[in-house]
Amino acid sequence: MDVYVVGAGMTKFGKHPDRDAVDLAVEAVNEAIRDAGVDRRRIQAAYCGHVYGGMVLGQKVLARTGLAGIPLANVENACSSGATAIREGYLAIRAGEYDVVLAFGVEHLTTRFRGALTPGEEDLEGALGLTMPAVYAMRAVRHMTEFGTTREELAYVSVKNKRNASLNPYAQFQNPVTVEDVLNSRPIADPLRLLDCCPVSDGAAAVVLASERVVGELGRSRAVRLAAASLRTGTVEVGLPSMAFEPLTRATAQDAYERAGVGPEDVDFAEVHDCFSIAEVLRVEGLGLYPVGEYPKRAARGEADIGGRLPINPSGGLLGKGHPLGATGVAQVVELVRQLRGEAGPRQIEGARVGLAHCRGGKAAGVEGAACTVLIATR
Amino acid sequence: MDVYVVGAGMTKFGKHPDRDAVDLAVEAVNEAIRDAGVDRRRIQAAYCGHVYGGMVLGQKVLARTGLAGIPLANVENACSSGATAIREGYLAIRAGEYDVVLAFGVEHLTTRFRGALTPGEEDLEGALGLTMPAVYAMRAVRHMTEFGTTREELAYVSVKNKRNASLNPYAQFQNPVTVEDVLNSRPIADPLRLLDCCPVSDGAAAVVLASERVVGELGRSRAVRLAAASLRTGTVEVGLPSMAFEPLTRATAQDAYERAGVGPEDVDFAEVHDCFSIAEVLRVEGLGLYPVGEYPKRAARGEADIGGRLPINPSGGLLGKGHPLGATGVAQVVELVRQLRGEAGPRQIEGARVGLAHCRGGKAAGVEGAACTVLIATR
Repeated sequence: MDVYVVGAGMTKFGKHPDRDAVDLAVEAVNEAIRDAGVDRRRIQAAYCGHVYGGMVLGQKVLARTGLAGIPLANVENACSSGATAIREGYLAIRAGEYDVVLAFGVEHLTTRFRGALTPGEEDLEGALGLTMPAVYAMRAVRHMTEFGTTREELAYVSVKNKRNASLNPYAQFQNPVTVEDVLNSRPIADPLRLLDCCPVSDGAAAVVLASERVVGELGRSRAVRLAAASLRTGTVEVGLPSMAFEPLTRATAQDAYERAGVGPEDVDFAEVHDCFSIAEVLRVEGLGLYPVGEYPKRAARGEADIGGRLPINPSGGLLGKGHPLGATGVAQVVELVRQLRGEAGPRQIEGARVGLAHCRGGKAAGVEGAACTVLIATR
Repeated sequence: MDVYVVGAGMTKFGKHPDRDAVDLAVEAVNEAIRDAGVDRRRIQAAYCGHVYGGMVLGQKVLARTGLAGIPLANVENACSSGATAIREGYLAIRAGEYDVVLAFGVEHLTTRFRGALTPGEEDLEGALGLTMPAVYAMRAVRHMTEFGTTREELAYVSVKNKRNASLNPYAQFQNPVTVEDVLNSRPIADPLRLLDCCPVSDGAAAVVLASERVVGELGRSRAVRLAAASLRTGTVEVGLPSMAFEPLTRATAQDAYERAGVGPEDVDFAEVHDCFSIAEVLRVEGLGLYPVGEYPKRAARGEADIGGRLPINPSGGLLGKGHPLGATGVAQVVELVRQLRGEAGPRQIEGARVGLAHCRGGKAAGVEGAACTVLIATR
């Protein structure tokens, strides 16, 4: 049974010291429902993706949006939590159980962390220094070594995404930066600089999913088909030979391509998990959207720009739009919907028919805790 | 599409200071797989229910059970987390996506709490004294006032469940208690005493779910059909007139009865969420298994004993078996499986064909955060 996204909404991502996770999620949920043009009483079930929001967060959001009563499951898959919420909604509709399902994601990170995210108590590798920036710094060095990628090429990923973000009123960063700005920003984990890293963000995003049965009634003209929602478990690629390549991203993408009946060559644009500049490189190459080893050079030539051969992260991505963990995967789909509907304004990718969203999350360096999602949406 | 439970396993519930959540879950998962007699390579997806286990807990368990790679979502619905994991697995099979799905739940509460569970940071009512024991104490008083329930009748619920637990080698408590023991135990929140309250527990439980398609091959003779897996959101019943009755439990049960095509009169036994002695009363009456107001008297006459008219919590329930939050809902289904297969030993309910499992969880007193599940299994 086909599943469609019929409504999408999000809050502005950024620092929201005067609000909490429930408040942010309520705004996103209400915007998605309004966008869908659906009577909220028709929503039959919901999924809430978050990491740090505490017990029964989703239920609290339902109570404040007139949706109390319906089934809801909170889901957690680290940075893939929001995308997992969408996947569970997709499965529930495919099970024939429901026709209209709400999926949302939210995080209020600035409540929990004063500065950068710190490793969890039981994260021994993190405590010893193998934090997320350190892991990605090693991977950047490896990509440079294997493929001759330059520091400037990596910086261009941030430049592109922050430029895209400046065209997105919902993005945390509204100002473009230059390659020089990136290279001159504060060192974080050599060779990565501050502007190579996504920020700490608060925010929420929501989508309304609908079955084939009701999509006509709700307005097929603005509906986007969710052609695949794949999820895999794997390991963080610390160690050789895979540190500069992501088998987990590749496997998840292959599953998604197969289910959607499309190949990487059919993808018109993608939102990928660019938690660091190097991360976008690893994702895009893992997804098969660009040849392995070539993405930084091609991106620096403009191929991944809006208007380029295959735009990556037109929304601004995590680097530009921000990264409130649970909200991220849902916000990617919000961008897919806006692009595929032709409603992306100055960020619009002309003629976009197939969009892909990729998330990855998990323990910094453990061999054991990565979750990866690939969602494909089509017009 | 019909969904079956083909394997079930659990750890002993109790205090496990020398183990952690992953270690406990691995034991339960391995036991469930062994019990199912299925090659673990046939397991296509998994769900992990937990509350306090931290990020990507389920993925860590997969890595240590030879299951890394498959899709997994961690789900959280407070005390209904484990049951929600089963429900999501049930939906994923019904979606036609998978034929064999693992669902497990786990909690290591003694790592997180030294004594009783404390209210969360944002739980204002809890901070002001409206903790779980206080809420249930008020509800006990209300049931006494409305229906003439006596303190001794309430105590008998604990007596029955701890006696059942003494017949269950996996239960935290192995010794029967008397009504006098309950009444003489330490006061917690008047009129509730220590032995009216479930303990703080560590433990894990797991089930293997299978589609109609593969159940014949895996051995239909030991398979149990999961006839319904219903989930609802609602409010904790603080306030009149509902404090002594649970509309949320009633609504969830009605949904489950309808989906399973059975009524409360068809249920041969039930595992219900007896976090306190009074809680069992509210659940059983909400489920329609006993007339509203009459359960305490009837239970005290032996109707809910193993061998009685309609046995409640033959496993020992939360009061006797223990309550490691995320594991609880899954352990209930482990008991359903053992009873329906006729493998419950000295706890066996003769001729059991229909079993029901009920969980409820959520914020102590908030109007907004309750999740309720009702699962029905049949032979």
